Amino acid sequence: MPDARKNDLSRVEALIFDVFGTVVNWRDSIIVEVSKAAAEHGMPEGDWGRFADEWRAWYGKSTRELSSGEGHWRLVDEIHREKLDVLLAEYGLADVMSEEAKVDINRAWHRLDGWPDSPSGLRRLKSKFILATASNGNLALLVNMAKHADLPWDAVMSPDVYGAYKPSPKVYQNASKLLGLNTDQVMMVAAHTGDLEASARQGLATAFVYRPLERGADNLVEMPDTSAFDISATDFNDLADQLGCD
Amino acid sequence: MPDARKNDLSRVEALIFDVFGTVVNWRDSIIVEVSKAAAEHGMPEGDWGRFADEWRAWYGKSTRELSSGEGHWRLVDEIHREKLDVLLAEYGLADVMSEEAKVDINRAWHRLDGWPDSPSGLRRLKSKFILATASNGNLALLVNMAKHADLPWDAVMSPDVYGAYKPSPKVYQNASKLLGLNTDQVMMVAAHTGDLEASARQGLATAFVYRPLERGADNLVEMPDTSAFDISATDFNDLADQLGCD
Repeated sequence: MPDARKNDLSRVEALIFDVFGTVVNWRDSIIVEVSKAAAEHGMPEGDWGRFADEWRAWYGKSTRELSSGEGHWRLVDEIHREKLDVLLAEYGLADVMSEEAKVDINRAWHRLDGWPDSPSGLRRLKSKFILATASNGNLALLVNMAKHADLPWDAVMSPDVYGAYKPSPKVYQNASKLLGLNTDQVMMVAAHTGDLEASARQGLATAFVYRPLERGADNLVEMPDTSAFDISATDFNDLADQLGCD
Repeated sequence: MPDARKNDLSRVEALIFDVFGTVVNWRDSIIVEVSKAAAEHGMPEGDWGRFADEWRAWYGKSTRELSSGEGHWRLVDEIHREKLDVLLAEYGLADVMSEEAKVDINRAWHRLDGWPDSPSGLRRLKSKFILATASNGNLALLVNMAKHADLPWDAVMSPDVYGAYKPSPKVYQNASKLLGLNTDQVMMVAAHTGDLEASARQGLATAFVYRPLERGADNLVEMPDTSAFDISATDFNDLADQLGCD
């Protein structure tokens, strides 16, 4: 990959963010919602961590296919629903839940909680930079999530706006274009190195944010090699410090 | 036009806004910036109100053409620049201003001030509804303006997102689709009746907001017939009152 450390950070005017895992704690939020819905339908016991992980894995597989132009175009809400139906059947919940309850649990992804530093850290960053999403979630999902988790985006952008899924180069190029900026005036912020590597290849600056708990406390994410990125931060307040925000 | 008053407003979850004139006072903002730039370039006298009106009229003509599929697709930043060059030549400023100064004055449209009630009224509305733009301004312009004028949008959407210019039906349909809502769950808010009539034809609810000063204090906008719209409000705080916001 290119030497991302060469970027002149004084040129950066906008930060674009990976959302699932980087801004919001998807796993714990999904476990809470799924276990609650299961209990309400007479199923108090279950490995809801595995349920959440398998749901998330299907999203990963499906969006990777879409990023490389395979599969029929669909929104993450639809991708989530495909796998939800499979999982509910597997866990014995398909026949006891109404369609309304299924729609509601699929919308748990619209109600993910932020990491503790997300609202305050994003507000500090917002005082100096334009903040936008560069998520594979669809626009409606991201807008609803922002209201739920108090995420003060300046612009919500998504595959239904970009016309592509990450890590397609189009996402990083179109994000910069829509914001009226050159790619080196935009910094990608993510907890996932693949996202940062793909953005660096398009000329964006890069900031890694370490989210050790994304896979749960029993399965801590190891700190990766971040030497190729412009910034490595422990959370959004650390990122705000390193970027000179008040 | 359809009888918009039939809408069930309890279904409305999102408000989408016309911006120029409805949310921001484009005319006074442009007059201030143009007269200041002209004075700095040795031209203290000039009919800057006429300059602003002619600049705006070109935007109106150009976006109407684009809404009906005529002309080559371009962003409002480019439409503004086309007419700026004509006006600067006409007012004797073309040769005395640097390219940098021309770029800066074209960006005056990114720095328009809100009407006095805009930040507070939008915040009240935001506590109950999703707030999004449905402007013909491009995304970068609207994002920069929101930061300048303290406009707390949940989503900034524009022709570079919608793929169409108002009053094309596509804008109102795509706004609803991107927000994951049916058209009757979305209310168009505008100071211009044509925009509201076009949105009502696509099934949206409608709110007229009266902005008598949009054309200047010497040329007050008359109150139109608003009987076909769901709501007629004097400003955003009145709209918030009528929609039951705290």
